[in-house]
Amino acid sequence: MTGPLYVSVSGSGDAPPEVIALAEEVGSHLAAANAVVVCGGLGGVMEAVCRGAKSAGGTTVGILPGTTRFDANDFVDVALPTGLGESRNALVARAADALIAIGGEFGTLSEIGFALKIGTPVIGLGTWELRRDGVAAEAITSASTPAEAVALALRLARGV
Amino acid sequence: MTGPLYVSVSGSGDAPPEVIALAEEVGSHLAAANAVVVCGGLGGVMEAVCRGAKSAGGTTVGILPGTTRFDANDFVDVALPTGLGESRNALVARAADALIAIGGEFGTLSEIGFALKIGTPVIGLGTWELRRDGVAAEAITSASTPAEAVALALRLARGV
Amino acid sequence: MTGPLYVSVSGSGDAPPEVIALAEEVGSHLAAANAVVVCGGLGGVMEAVCRGAKSAGGTTVGILPGTTRFDANDFVDVALPTGLGESRNALVARAADALIAIGGEFGTLSEIGFALKIGTPVIGLGTWELRRDGVAAEAITSASTPAEAVALALRLARGV
Amino acid sequence: MTGPLYVSVSGSGDAPPEVIALAEEVGSHLAAANAVVVCGGLGGVMEAVCRGAKSAGGTTVGILPGTTRFDANDFVDVALPTGLGESRNALVARAADALIAIGGEFGTLSEIGFALKIGTPVIGLGTWELRRDGVAAEAITSASTPAEAVALALRLARGV
Repeated sequence: MTGPLYVSVSGSGDAPPEVIALAEEVGSHLAAANAVVVCGGLGGVMEAVCRGAKSAGGTTVGILPGTTRFDANDFVDVALPTGLGESRNALVARAADALIAIGGEFGTLSEIGFALKIGTPVIGLGTWELRRDGVAAEAITSASTPAEAVALALRLARGV
Repeated sequence: MTGPLYVSVSGSGDAPPEVIALAEEVGSHLAAANAVVVCGGLGGVMEAVCRGAKSAGGTTVGILPGTTRFDANDFVDVALPTGLGESRNALVARAADALIAIGGEFGTLSEIGFALKIGTPVIGLGTWELRRDGVAAEAITSASTPAEAVALALRLARGV
Repeated sequence: MTGPLYVSVSGSGDAPPEVIALAEEVGSHLAAANAVVVCGGLGGVMEAVCRGAKSAGGTTVGILPGTTRFDANDFVDVALPTGLGESRNALVARAADALIAIGGEFGTLSEIGFALKIGTPVIGLGTWELRRDGVAAEAITSASTPAEAVALALRLARGV
Repeated sequence: MTGPLYVSVSGSGDAPPEVIALAEEVGSHLAAANAVVVCGGLGGVMEAVCRGAKSAGGTTVGILPGTTRFDANDFVDVALPTGLGESRNALVARAADALIAIGGEFGTLSEIGFALKIGTPVIGLGTWELRRDGVAAEAITSASTPAEAVALALRLARGV
């Protein structure tokens, strides 16, 4: 199997308007680059990134915590109810060649941790900053804009 | 979210030619009915049902046991590596409005059990027969042909 | 790590008194043989097997579907809430050297299927009978009494 | 079901001697307080915390990523192979009333993220520091010594 890159986008189901706007722009840039957009399938950042992707003709996948795919937001093409609760965050991190973390709360932190653990590159857009022993860890690649986040995600997803 | 029905197809990764032929025909009938085809994403019955679905212009989803989507067969549109091993069978059963079990070995039995447990209708095509106390259980709806299996799956998926 | 055998016991959370009695006896025999008893941690057969095991001084483990260990029955020593819902059945099957299925409904069938898939021996006590093509499958080893079920489980768990 | 507190301890399978020493001391303090010690069941910090707990007569649980309980370190009392790979980290976070993170690499970060997401208090001993917008997040309660980490874990586990 060959095919498009998969990029997961992580972010809160309850985010302020400026974060929602970033997410929507990330979605449209990913779709314009023909990347499949994966997320947790619910509202907030998840809905915004799917809406952005669909506005640019992209494909969206929602990996849901609950037991019915009707929990998915209106912009999810392929909805997968897992019934795994928050453990589905591990699947969101696993599904992709790169993970873009936008803003985000603790659920996003868990997806960042999983992605880093399994070697999936993580790009951050206004998200958690990680330090060890008082020093910034070189773990999350920081981006300043949606366009930069997507460009970094695609480059790191290709391993270049 | 509204949209197409999802039907999962369960079967062995190593099946004889006559079972493979059934699976391919199931896939093409499902696609002709605009159902999204979900399976375990690997070879054998899983590959055949995806090949059949793609031959009829359908959409296919593979929920993989391993950690890379490159394990998917060539006819999977959306491939999700779960890293959950055989536990991913629960997700295959969960993902759909109905499950068609074709031939099948023990992995198929686990998907049948999960689907029945969570209330997903199961249609059997040359698969396991279940009995309790020497009496056939009314659990799997038996079909004689791929066309009949798909017709039953769609009807039961709609709850009619 | 060496140590005791682990035997999982599968059965319904809502079983008739005669099945409950069988389960309690299975639990006491397992504990008498120093096997760790694993189950889904809830009521019915699960509670009965734990009660039997504790009456004989055994150790019991409950792998729970929900998010709090306070769902466990009173006879569980080590309770693990998984938050995985019914998918935790795969973990019950995975945890043991042998699985004893007692009576049981569809959830038990899913545990039987998983155990067989991953090569864990399954002993049945008034449980599902599996057939393929009209012929009984040689998959579940049938027992007539709790004592026989436990003897078979221990023998098969040891691979002898 | 009532009973002891459960405390999960997270840390790398490959840690330097000074971190190993901290972990062992955490284990012995937890056991002295009658807490059940839960961890990922493998080497490094996981083995050290179990060794410490057993030296003080405690009970240890290992939730393993692989498919056999023989992967567990020698100081695990109850070993549960999950076959879920790194996704088992979510179960380690879920299993406990509090999580102590010691040193730790990305796997530990994923357990911290999960614990915070589901509301399990997290105590850090030389572990990740989390910041948002250049400001330290009030998420992980920092401890300076094993004794302090255990005292904080027990207090937060009790919700006081």
